Amino acid sequence: MAKWEQKRSFWTWGYESDEPTEEQRRGVAKAISARTGVAVEPPPIPKLADIAIRSPRLEVPSNLAGWVSTDSEDRLLHTYGGHFMELLAAMRGQFDNPPDAVAHPRSEDELEATLAWADAAGHKVVPYGGGTSVVWGVRPPDAESVVTIDLDHLGGVVEIDHTSRAARVRAGMLGPDLEDVLRPEGLTLRHFPQSFPWSTVGGWVATRAGGHYATNQTHIDDMVESMRMITPSGWWESRRLPGSGAGPSPDRMVIGSEGTLGIISECWLRLQKRPVYRATAGIVFPSWAAGAEAVRLIVQSKLWPSNLRLLDPAEAKQSAGLDGKQALLIAGFESADIPQGTNIQAAVALAREAGGVIEDDQIRVDDGRGKATGREGAVGAWRDSFIGVNAGLTNGLGLIVDTFETAITWNRFAEFDGHVREKVGSTLERVLGTGWSLSCRFTHVYTDGPAPYYTLMGPGKIGGELEQWQEIKAAATEAVVEAGGTVTHHHAVGRMHRPGYDQQRPDLFAQAFKAAKQSLDPRATLNPGVLFDVD
Amino acid sequence: MAKWEQKRSFWTWGYESDEPTEEQRRGVAKAISARTGVAVEPPPIPKLADIAIRSPRLEVPSNLAGWVSTDSEDRLLHTYGGHFMELLAAMRGQFDNPPDAVAHPRSEDELEATLAWADAAGHKVVPYGGGTSVVWGVRPPDAESVVTIDLDHLGGVVEIDHTSRAARVRAGMLGPDLEDVLRPEGLTLRHFPQSFPWSTVGGWVATRAGGHYATNQTHIDDMVESMRMITPSGWWESRRLPGSGAGPSPDRMVIGSEGTLGIISECWLRLQKRPVYRATAGIVFPSWAAGAEAVRLIVQSKLWPSNLRLLDPAEAKQSAGLDGKQALLIAGFESADIPQGTNIQAAVALAREAGGVIEDDQIRVDDGRGKATGREGAVGAWRDSFIGVNAGLTNGLGLIVDTFETAITWNRFAEFDGHVREKVGSTLERVLGTGWSLSCRFTHVYTDGPAPYYTLMGPGKIGGELEQWQEIKAAATEAVVEAGGTVTHHHAVGRMHRPGYDQQRPDLFAQAFKAAKQSLDPRATLNPGVLFDVD
Repeated sequence: MAKWEQKRSFWTWGYESDEPTEEQRRGVAKAISARTGVAVEPPPIPKLADIAIRSPRLEVPSNLAGWVSTDSEDRLLHTYGGHFMELLAAMRGQFDNPPDAVAHPRSEDELEATLAWADAAGHKVVPYGGGTSVVWGVRPPDAESVVTIDLDHLGGVVEIDHTSRAARVRAGMLGPDLEDVLRPEGLTLRHFPQSFPWSTVGGWVATRAGGHYATNQTHIDDMVESMRMITPSGWWESRRLPGSGAGPSPDRMVIGSEGTLGIISECWLRLQKRPVYRATAGIVFPSWAAGAEAVRLIVQSKLWPSNLRLLDPAEAKQSAGLDGKQALLIAGFESADIPQGTNIQAAVALAREAGGVIEDDQIRVDDGRGKATGREGAVGAWRDSFIGVNAGLTNGLGLIVDTFETAITWNRFAEFDGHVREKVGSTLERVLGTGWSLSCRFTHVYTDGPAPYYTLMGPGKIGGELEQWQEIKAAATEAVVEAGGTVTHHHAVGRMHRPGYDQQRPDLFAQAFKAAKQSLDPRATLNPGVLFDVD
Repeated sequence: MAKWEQKRSFWTWGYESDEPTEEQRRGVAKAISARTGVAVEPPPIPKLADIAIRSPRLEVPSNLAGWVSTDSEDRLLHTYGGHFMELLAAMRGQFDNPPDAVAHPRSEDELEATLAWADAAGHKVVPYGGGTSVVWGVRPPDAESVVTIDLDHLGGVVEIDHTSRAARVRAGMLGPDLEDVLRPEGLTLRHFPQSFPWSTVGGWVATRAGGHYATNQTHIDDMVESMRMITPSGWWESRRLPGSGAGPSPDRMVIGSEGTLGIISECWLRLQKRPVYRATAGIVFPSWAAGAEAVRLIVQSKLWPSNLRLLDPAEAKQSAGLDGKQALLIAGFESADIPQGTNIQAAVALAREAGGVIEDDQIRVDDGRGKATGREGAVGAWRDSFIGVNAGLTNGLGLIVDTFETAITWNRFAEFDGHVREKVGSTLERVLGTGWSLSCRFTHVYTDGPAPYYTLMGPGKIGGELEQWQEIKAAATEAVVEAGGTVTHHHAVGRMHRPGYDQQRPDLFAQAFKAAKQSLDPRATLNPGVLFDVD
């Protein structure tokens, strides 16, 4: 069964088949109780059918009834994205603001008709891909009536161009379904955000998702060759061009527009040949600063490793068992055509210059004939922890768990990191008391600076999580933006990051972009409240 | 003397010191006469002071008089860009539509005051960097009054950030002046468009200039970290961020806007450490198609050579003396940190797979201790022909000389190239008769397709060059756009490429972008006619 045909869980990431068992949840609850000294029990999971839901505030015209419905369960399943506060509310049966109808158009014609109806009738529209937004990008806005348009029936690869290494893909296609089609062709998009199993091509493009590559072409932006998008003013279609200098890029105006300009229906995406040659090393540094310096040297050498993830001492300890002072760098190279031994050796040499330690026999080079690499030792431990995300395990147990990610130039990084840790740490201390943690890793890096990704965790007050989280989140956003960073490197802005975003983007850009939006969407139908308020 | 202090030539590219001598021009005229059988003489060059010019249609307020003037010579020098038809008109003393005043603001305050005055008074404004536009980007529009704002006094490096490898540069700085500042710091922008000696940072950003790197980061777009721009609605300033996913990129809306949204006053640019290690090879192929296939294999291998320029048989013959059937590929790698021998060997191996021929002892690897490479043999001959552009040599001798550049996906390249050669070739035949040539090289290449750069040349009719050129240019634009390419890969749109651009960009993008412009520039003061007509 293709991923998109499976039934989603409403209280954890993924499908019902991904839900943890009662037994697993009890195990985690026991571990938490042991650590905090406060007994917790996994709360019961309500049945969707038992959850009371507001009556739909609109009527679906009969000509759309084949794919638009006001079915309660469907509306419940489209009330929230994937943020942990949303999953918590869902688990508690709190569905105060569901969409009034959910559309599942099966063709561009149906998509167009749905948008035209909503726009004419004055319903607001939320475009919906995989529903994994952690920034309230798919939550219905406060409005008189809301239609969520789910692209789940608009998936599939339409065409593959082997010569140019590109494919025309419908926007609703999920990551694993796309890779299933590309694999037998010897191709891959190699875009693996943490949400990969449950997120879509259109969602990646709309939110400027960050992907597999830690350096060089880090965002989906670079993989987009052209696109088709429906707007209230009609279709927007760009040309397939490898490069262009003809005016500002039309695609770049859409990429990151988060459903405010239109609904992307398909894209031509640049692909990769599947890698055969790999080389990996896990390099230990005496300190976070030494590790950061190594990353700077390596990325500025333009070796362009596919992986260059640096774990701070807290994460290196937790994920790979290091001593709590050392940082761990996972460097990886890959290629379909060229052995990568020389590159990993060059990267390791630079890392050693910065104080990195690795035994020569720990540098793993796969010449394409042997077994897979990078799945053992410290590297393997880290991989497992990355792939093993399961929000459902801790949901409802009082834990406050969140992440925020940013980017900052190298010259300001140390001061920035200190400021963020001080401000967020003191807020965690005040709000949660003891037992909290705040850690960081670099997920992506650039010649001019890293993209630090912070994870915070701590025991909250059951029933008071929202207020506690709000205070912590506000401190994190403030700290990042006042110290010069971006409020998001790849999680997007949505409705959650507006306080930071409103400070960081040029005011005149906001003014110009809103004017552009208004010309396409004069009734402000599309995803109001995301990125900007539209009057 | 810094480049910007030197006096420009009005009839050839560059400065008066770059003008060819009377003797050199006679020599070229003789060579042309011998080839065409029609005697030509280099025409006399008028003195600027003798050229009649329309009276200024505006008055400069006294508070701006320190940097805005209606001086005739200055207006003459700002009437044209660098297209060969413009240089020809200039040489003939035809200056029908000069700007009415030229401003040389010496500070952001003066820049702001100039724009505010022009905007309030209803004068149109043409932003002017180095004046090398070959697409009529700096020609005054048809308007009641026009002020050209030349950034030549707003140059200089304000700040260098060695740690992040970035510099804050004022927009009016010329290429050589920038490199003169960066060189002793061990840094370089490595952005070398053919116009490099005479073009500016602001001009590069406004027009999405294509630079030194043939693969990966080909355009100035990738080097822009942040910018400041003055608009009729005030200042636009983006944050220094190595990467971001917060909404559509503000910078990408400005990059390529060609002076229609505002005037860029400064940018933070990403820099390179000066390369030490180099490796170069000139590889000969039995055919154009075989060369193209090699380029495809190399770029898709993601070795990211800095140079990967393929000359078609005509160019390979002319520049490097090959047999007229063979194509020549010049592949080059460079790095400040890593020896490049392995990379060049890998690229050569891929080229050989596609039928390329090169002796092993012709692969030149510079380990950083020896002499410079890549300046001998076929490679050296090609370099000299690239750097040696001197439009003045042939100006006025009846030659029609032009170039056009584009990009197309690999799967369509052969058909595209055939179509362009057929359509443009038959037009050259019809318009010029015998003696014309049409050739192509790849200047930049992408995993999904090349950027072919066509050069056409032939003996025109003295006095009838404009009409002849117009017919040829129209055919070239039509051929490129109808076969699926972009009307420009890095020369920009300006006013010249509007017929093609208007077909290729999404109509809704034009609508949205015009709305954005109107919100910033409500009186349509900035560069009307470039990119779009504004009502």
